[in-house]
Amino acid sequence: MGSDSDWPTMRAAAEVLDDFGVAYEVRVISAHRTPVAMIEYGRDAADRGLKVIIAGAGGAAALPGMVASVTPLPVIGVPVPLKHLDGMDSLLSIVQMPAGIPVATVSIGNARNAGLLAVRILGAGDEGLRAKMTTYQQDLEKLVAEKEAALQATLR
Amino acid sequence: MGSDSDWPTMRAAAEVLDDFGVAYEVRVISAHRTPVAMIEYGRDAADRGLKVIIAGAGGAAALPGMVASVTPLPVIGVPVPLKHLDGMDSLLSIVQMPAGIPVATVSIGNARNAGLLAVRILGAGDEGLRAKMTTYQQDLEKLVAEKEAALQATLR
Amino acid sequence: MGSDSDWPTMRAAAEVLDDFGVAYEVRVISAHRTPVAMIEYGRDAADRGLKVIIAGAGGAAALPGMVASVTPLPVIGVPVPLKHLDGMDSLLSIVQMPAGIPVATVSIGNARNAGLLAVRILGAGDEGLRAKMTTYQQDLEKLVAEKEAALQATLR
Amino acid sequence: MGSDSDWPTMRAAAEVLDDFGVAYEVRVISAHRTPVAMIEYGRDAADRGLKVIIAGAGGAAALPGMVASVTPLPVIGVPVPLKHLDGMDSLLSIVQMPAGIPVATVSIGNARNAGLLAVRILGAGDEGLRAKMTTYQQDLEKLVAEKEAALQATLR
Amino acid sequence: MGSDSDWPTMRAAAEVLDDFGVAYEVRVISAHRTPVAMIEYGRDAADRGLKVIIAGAGGAAALPGMVASVTPLPVIGVPVPLKHLDGMDSLLSIVQMPAGIPVATVSIGNARNAGLLAVRILGAGDEGLRAKMTTYQQDLEKLVAEKEAALQATLR
Amino acid sequence: MGSDSDWPTMRAAAEVLDDFGVAYEVRVISAHRTPVAMIEYGRDAADRGLKVIIAGAGGAAALPGMVASVTPLPVIGVPVPLKHLDGMDSLLSIVQMPAGIPVATVSIGNARNAGLLAVRILGAGDEGLRAKMTTYQQDLEKLVAEKEAALQATLR
Amino acid sequence: MGSDSDWPTMRAAAEVLDDFGVAYEVRVISAHRTPVAMIEYGRDAADRGLKVIIAGAGGAAALPGMVASVTPLPVIGVPVPLKHLDGMDSLLSIVQMPAGIPVATVSIGNARNAGLLAVRILGAGDEGLRAKMTTYQQDLEKLVAEKEAALQATLR
Amino acid sequence: MGSDSDWPTMRAAAEVLDDFGVAYEVRVISAHRTPVAMIEYGRDAADRGLKVIIAGAGGAAALPGMVASVTPLPVIGVPVPLKHLDGMDSLLSIVQMPAGIPVATVSIGNARNAGLLAVRILGAGDEGLRAKMTTYQQDLEKLVAEKEAALQATLR
Repeated sequence: MGSDSDWPTMRAAAEVLDDFGVAYEVRVISAHRTPVAMIEYGRDAADRGLKVIIAGAGGAAALPGMVASVTPLPVIGVPVPLKHLDGMDSLLSIVQMPAGIPVATVSIGNARNAGLLAVRILGAGDEGLRAKMTTYQQDLEKLVAEKEAALQATLR
Repeated sequence: MGSDSDWPTMRAAAEVLDDFGVAYEVRVISAHRTPVAMIEYGRDAADRGLKVIIAGAGGAAALPGMVASVTPLPVIGVPVPLKHLDGMDSLLSIVQMPAGIPVATVSIGNARNAGLLAVRILGAGDEGLRAKMTTYQQDLEKLVAEKEAALQATLR
Repeated sequence: MGSDSDWPTMRAAAEVLDDFGVAYEVRVISAHRTPVAMIEYGRDAADRGLKVIIAGAGGAAALPGMVASVTPLPVIGVPVPLKHLDGMDSLLSIVQMPAGIPVATVSIGNARNAGLLAVRILGAGDEGLRAKMTTYQQDLEKLVAEKEAALQATLR
Repeated sequence: MGSDSDWPTMRAAAEVLDDFGVAYEVRVISAHRTPVAMIEYGRDAADRGLKVIIAGAGGAAALPGMVASVTPLPVIGVPVPLKHLDGMDSLLSIVQMPAGIPVATVSIGNARNAGLLAVRILGAGDEGLRAKMTTYQQDLEKLVAEKEAALQATLR
Repeated sequence: MGSDSDWPTMRAAAEVLDDFGVAYEVRVISAHRTPVAMIEYGRDAADRGLKVIIAGAGGAAALPGMVASVTPLPVIGVPVPLKHLDGMDSLLSIVQMPAGIPVATVSIGNARNAGLLAVRILGAGDEGLRAKMTTYQQDLEKLVAEKEAALQATLR
Repeated sequence: MGSDSDWPTMRAAAEVLDDFGVAYEVRVISAHRTPVAMIEYGRDAADRGLKVIIAGAGGAAALPGMVASVTPLPVIGVPVPLKHLDGMDSLLSIVQMPAGIPVATVSIGNARNAGLLAVRILGAGDEGLRAKMTTYQQDLEKLVAEKEAALQATLR
Repeated sequence: MGSDSDWPTMRAAAEVLDDFGVAYEVRVISAHRTPVAMIEYGRDAADRGLKVIIAGAGGAAALPGMVASVTPLPVIGVPVPLKHLDGMDSLLSIVQMPAGIPVATVSIGNARNAGLLAVRILGAGDEGLRAKMTTYQQDLEKLVAEKEAALQATLR
Repeated sequence: MGSDSDWPTMRAAAEVLDDFGVAYEVRVISAHRTPVAMIEYGRDAADRGLKVIIAGAGGAAALPGMVASVTPLPVIGVPVPLKHLDGMDSLLSIVQMPAGIPVATVSIGNARNAGLLAVRILGAGDEGLRAKMTTYQQDLEKLVAEKEAALQATLR
């Protein structure tokens, strides 16, 4: 992520990875403030054994696209909403990449989904992880069923 | 994709997969017109050996998110622009997924990037494919260098 | 509705139906978290004797359109505003349905109007209910007249 | 509709009603140019035996909401896109009704869906019509299946 | 105005008219809740001696345009911002009138400017009022000069 | 207006004034290219006997507001749409004036309405002109009635 | 700036200039409230020895463009966000200048960047200042590195 | 610029520089396709004697901001409009830079203004160039006066 001020938003991605037992590292690297470090980080990522990169940034959010430009790995972009424009600038800056360099963009401020997408990507080549994702989705179903039951109890 | 009218847009994804030697299938399945077939398709996808799903749709574009809701595989969404609103409705309908079910969204009308993202995702667990992606990115660099040279020749 | 967190918004629809003496049921069913239950609910709705379905959802709000795709009943969509974008994403995801499957969309967060629209729809074939709606509209007129009188009193 | 220039857009609603064998009338009445005629039309509609009103308008599109204010019948609004803003002004002017007076809004320029919504509304109290809608939806499914087959043939 | 809840916004117009010594009346009349009263009010306005009408409304804000449709007087529209969309829906619903019926629209929530515009309109045929407006504008200039002086004092 | 390229848009205002027999002058004066001439023009306008000023401009459209800042006359702003953004930038630049200096804004590209608003403003103090406006509005009603009749003939 | 209410936003520009040891003056001058003073200020600026002008304004923000129209100096515009629309109106009113008169626009509410841009502009012709900017950018890099280190400490 | 497809847009900047007799170079360098070349170009720019950099890009337009992150020189950003969204994504991606790294953004597709802004920036430290800019602005005034005269001739 580009700044430690993004951590309260981005931490949800880390929590998901913890839940799924996926190892990860957290780094503060800025496209606009540490451009060379960012390039180096992206260049080395695949060789260091990383499989997926999650990049969160706000405003003129160049980080996800720039990292994607220097790695062959899939890069997931999280549009972090800033004080103005409700994340619309962050979303467009991340998702509207030119042909050639894709960024897998998730919803505004939704780092949890970035983590889940990373698990799905890793699960494409890992049956165990894929099974965990299926279980997670079944748990979501149960959770909705419980909420439904709780609401019905309230309404009676 | 939701309609054969999306094929002129979506074909670019197929071309990328051909270029990278990745096997794929093309299907016309609509969230709103063939909901049950869509659910079944999504449910069976992982068991049938698919690794990634690319879903393109326009307007109130439910297809990518609905498919993601019934598969543990990564789903890539392509916002297809319709006659009005320039794809902004398609983009928001695809990217703004609730916590729990992510869709990896690419830029409006950019099926080429969906194909490239699929290759990156598969490449996360396939060194050969990752190497091809690196080569592809080097080719992009060369292409820009050639355009640069051509422009310089024009300007002289 | 897709989540019990939508209930504070959606309850206004239930209150209207109570006021008009229209029987109804409230259900938490999610397009993205319980897709199969949603399909089944929609499929059975007409046979179970339901006449109109009100569906509220936020963000990439697939619920109203997906339910409409599996029932011949009229479906009313309520765009629930989430934390970002002020409901604009919810509105476009619900209203911009493709030709073939309509959703009767009301204003952002306005479940009260969804309830009133349901009453109007039922009233199309029920003179008694239509008469109640006419009375309701006359009451609105009186309410405005009273507010007008109260304001005039203040201004003097 | 507010102007005969809306007819090319609105005609699709009439065609749907013809297809479903639903009787209807077509009128050019403008909220801003013939306000009194509009009020009278709306006031008499229910007594004249109309069951649903479809109103299309563009820009500061007051027609659907104004008609809804003087009738207890369900009113369907079609946002007609004008030369600028791609129908976004029409959409917001129609859908964002205040609490008390709902308009059932369909997608921008989508009069076909307005016709289908009218059929669904009438079908809420008419089993024969509802059965026709179910058949129509099955036909949509078949159409997608045929397109799918045609595309597969092309791809081979 | 359409509701007494608009009064906190609209009161600024009344204050301006008080300051300029212009007689006025305040009315709560709703396009969607009291359509007939609104039409009658608009129809009689010129004969009752009114010269300008200020109409404030929010959301699908039909009031200014509808009043303009039944009077030959100039109508000033104030887009009242509601809970969602920050007044953008109100603005477009008021300003985007079709050719034939203009509404003089001022900035979102800016009833003060509506009052000042009414004074300018009346001043077009009233030299005394125009002179007062000139004085008002000179006072604005002085106010800025004083603020400038105060700021300079702070900075030293 | 700010440029002769605005004349195809603005000419509709002149045509209205011709129709109503209102004398006027047409000037090309630019806020950003001839600022001093613009200030002088605005300053002298009232003394030269002008009653209303219509100003059309596009993009960062400063002309209407700047003219309003140096005259006590009512100023009508026409947002001229440029090549990009469909006039939304022009609209916001004209309508969103700060408290103190109003601009009477009409719909995007709608100079005809600017002319009609000027007539209404002048008619506030001129019974003859007001009567003409009433006649014009009745003609609009007749025109709609004729279109209605023509359409009914087509449909039979 | 156009009002002393912009000072809390604009002060960040002054702080940057202090940090870089660049002399400056702060003025409250309004395009719409003190148009003549604004023109005079702009006209004299270059002769008085100013090198760059920073102008902040909100809503229909004419100040930056109008000052640019009467000076050959570079003018930096800061879109000040007002109560509604989150600064989008301010941004478009400042950045969308017609060909001929540019305004160097920075991000919404970001006066700090306006100050930094002024330093870069002055540094184009002043090696000492340019060196300070390079140092500032290195300090930004260090700051990110420190935040990174602090975060890593937290995560362990 | 990021692609030779931007040249038709960006060429207007070169023409301005030719007109003012300012030496320049034109380069095709892409943030996303040639990231390392871009970083190197930016890093060396000041030492090579460049004074100002103009960067045009479209969509998720990272180029201007990334170049600004590696040079202390002023960077001017031109939002190049792509096929969808009319340049709004390009504008937000360029202008909404985080505090610390400014980009001087001009209007959508307006490379001419980028050239003029570069001249103004260079003119801040070069009296001759500033005088030329003053002459240019006087020529603009004359041009408007001529257009005005031509229009008056037409109207007579």
